[in-house]
Amino acid sequence: VEEILMASLLPEVGVGLLGLGTVGAEVYRLLVERAEHIAGLVGRPCVVRRVAVARPGRQRRVRIPSSLLTSDGAAVVEDPAVDIVVEVMGGVDPARSLLLRALAGGKAVVTANKQLLAAHGAELLAAAASGGVDLCFEASVGAGIPLIKPLRESLAADRLRLIEGILNGTTNYILTLMSREGRTFAEALAEAQARGFAEADPADDVDGHDAAAKLAILAAVAFNTPIAAEQVYREGIGGITPADIRHAAELGYTIKLLAVARDRDGALELRVHPALIPVGHLLAGIAEERNAVLVEGDACGRVLFSGPGAGGAPTAAAVVGDIIDAARNRLRGAGGRTLSAPSVRRDIHPMERLVIPFYLRLQVTDRPGVFARIAAVFGEEQVSIASIVQKSRGEVADVILLTHEAEEAAMRRVVARLRAMDVVQVVGSVIRVVE
Amino acid sequence: VEEILMASLLPEVGVGLLGLGTVGAEVYRLLVERAEHIAGLVGRPCVVRRVAVARPGRQRRVRIPSSLLTSDGAAVVEDPAVDIVVEVMGGVDPARSLLLRALAGGKAVVTANKQLLAAHGAELLAAAASGGVDLCFEASVGAGIPLIKPLRESLAADRLRLIEGILNGTTNYILTLMSREGRTFAEALAEAQARGFAEADPADDVDGHDAAAKLAILAAVAFNTPIAAEQVYREGIGGITPADIRHAAELGYTIKLLAVARDRDGALELRVHPALIPVGHLLAGIAEERNAVLVEGDACGRVLFSGPGAGGAPTAAAVVGDIIDAARNRLRGAGGRTLSAPSVRRDIHPMERLVIPFYLRLQVTDRPGVFARIAAVFGEEQVSIASIVQKSRGEVADVILLTHEAEEAAMRRVVARLRAMDVVQVVGSVIRVVE
Repeated sequence: VEEILMASLLPEVGVGLLGLGTVGAEVYRLLVERAEHIAGLVGRPCVVRRVAVARPGRQRRVRIPSSLLTSDGAAVVEDPAVDIVVEVMGGVDPARSLLLRALAGGKAVVTANKQLLAAHGAELLAAAASGGVDLCFEASVGAGIPLIKPLRESLAADRLRLIEGILNGTTNYILTLMSREGRTFAEALAEAQARGFAEADPADDVDGHDAAAKLAILAAVAFNTPIAAEQVYREGIGGITPADIRHAAELGYTIKLLAVARDRDGALELRVHPALIPVGHLLAGIAEERNAVLVEGDACGRVLFSGPGAGGAPTAAAVVGDIIDAARNRLRGAGGRTLSAPSVRRDIHPMERLVIPFYLRLQVTDRPGVFARIAAVFGEEQVSIASIVQKSRGEVADVILLTHEAEEAAMRRVVARLRAMDVVQVVGSVIRVVE
Repeated sequence: VEEILMASLLPEVGVGLLGLGTVGAEVYRLLVERAEHIAGLVGRPCVVRRVAVARPGRQRRVRIPSSLLTSDGAAVVEDPAVDIVVEVMGGVDPARSLLLRALAGGKAVVTANKQLLAAHGAELLAAAASGGVDLCFEASVGAGIPLIKPLRESLAADRLRLIEGILNGTTNYILTLMSREGRTFAEALAEAQARGFAEADPADDVDGHDAAAKLAILAAVAFNTPIAAEQVYREGIGGITPADIRHAAELGYTIKLLAVARDRDGALELRVHPALIPVGHLLAGIAEERNAVLVEGDACGRVLFSGPGAGGAPTAAAVVGDIIDAARNRLRGAGGRTLSAPSVRRDIHPMERLVIPFYLRLQVTDRPGVFARIAAVFGEEQVSIASIVQKSRGEVADVILLTHEAEEAAMRRVVARLRAMDVVQVVGSVIRVVE
């Protein structure tokens, strides 16, 4: 009550920024250039009061009064004129402690920090709920694609069963290049780096860490449960070859780095790995650096969201959308309006018990009887073969094998036994298949 | 302030339903079956207090206590135990007067009624804003696909330029059948009717009225301006032939009933008509009864939403999502939190001044010199031809013509002149092209 009376007396909503990099500069620019529009939506101007940066003296890509700049994050978080703290600095520390302090001080928090949320989201949400303040993080997944609010609000009534997504633009760009132009992984990665779609150290993207963090955030919202990125099974795309992509295409599939969270009778499947996706699937056409998320619910059916999954401008649009939301709530004393649900702990469905079809590419000695020996191993491990096709001849032949649905544990036993066989030169790729 | 104190004393949020048809029955079922989940999200149970139906004595598809039923809509709207009025009865009257009465009485309103919103949306929004109560209508467009909230909240910071959508499932299903199986429009319509995807009287769908109403609602939200369905230029799909679809496919296009709202330097283009869409376009792959909306903004880029655009269960999920939203706001005295923006009147860009490429299918007398005479007409009207191809021979030949971008008014003059030419037997189709 007091909060509302105070808010109605305040002429402006005060915003504090932590960070002024690519996203932070765009956020500042949007808040300034769209100030009148934003004030119309909120009912009060939203004004930047304080900005924490590593080196306040440095040249900036936006024009910003130097009086706003400080090197002290705590000064932003504790400024009484700051109502909403916007964290676009990245990294876990000191972002975590600064945001916990902001929430404890009754300030709303908007963050784009997926790494922080995927590691400490539950702690931050609990702090927001206990303080009755907003914690908004639309920009942490899929940049400007609305995902968190649709999941947390629009689809709140439904029982969601599945989140299936292409959550990393770098790997999707690399796989698109490999698929369209027959490039190797290394060539496509080099081109992605040259075009600014991949970092100098690409491990966070190509090994699936980035997608796993985003999946953890989406799944936590969709299934209303604390999930950390470490709980997500993870495989990268470094082992995918042009031959795999070619063979997959011949079979009617495209290869994507897929992120999946599925409700299995209460337990959650959480996994990020390359997958063969049928060309008619809603995610198969998502090309280049685009991201997409497919949500399946009992009532809503299969709903797809897609768009540019990265970039300063789209990320900043999502951040400022959250600032507007938090400001609207703050002026009405309605902070934390979407955080009231009790969160339920869920078991993680063990990866070994995943049941899914597999694609295998083997190099085997090309002589009579080899197929029979290979097939026998599958049979003994209860893995049913759907097709086995020799793709080349010579001393060593490429063989492509598709299984019916099989248990992951059984497939791992098959692979271990194949690796030990004298007639099997290489188990080149083992890729899960979406039906 | 008083409202909040009162709300915190209330044990439950009261819901009143107007209508108990396909959607209403699903809404009731969701509220009962998901009661615990919904109470967890809202912080209080949401309980149905009163339901208005045409004939209270009739057999229902849901089990509902007969004590809840009344034939008097006003009794629902004026029941002091009803906090949120949910309108799923359809039609303009008496829905309009009942909802205006509900809003004037300080009740939140959730409606799925696109016809009402497309005709009287501005009046209802003004009533909601002046009462400081919520008016939610997520279910009015695209059933369970989150669209209104993402446009109104998530993308609020951005300057949106374009809404481009496939907003009618019936026509998309018909065009998909025509495209995949070479059916005529009449055959495909009959099959859609047999499968329950089209009404006995299909005019509302196939003539574009339904899509125009939905576009008016989306554009009003995206561009924050009052728009009525009558302001949308409209053409149906009844004139599309299997030959058009075949020729379009040969040229690399698919034919869709497209709904477009575009900001042209402040004025709005608003149109629903068949269009040739390049097969690589984000909307080209939206098949069967699926709907999709592509939103383009300065910052967010091109964001796509797609899903089932109709059906009792998805529509009900959107309605109950809105109920949860309205209930959360109500308990915090935050009704009308998203309605504070002043709305700006916009000019409508006149259709005659639309500039777009065209596809034409003509039947002409097959003799030398005919191409030259036809081409001369285009040239005299300043319409530049991109290609002209004869598709059949005989006394009368099919000719397919593609133009570069041309003004709609010029193309209308060309068509009128072609119709008057002795060598032109038929101007079969004139279809706009998306580049």
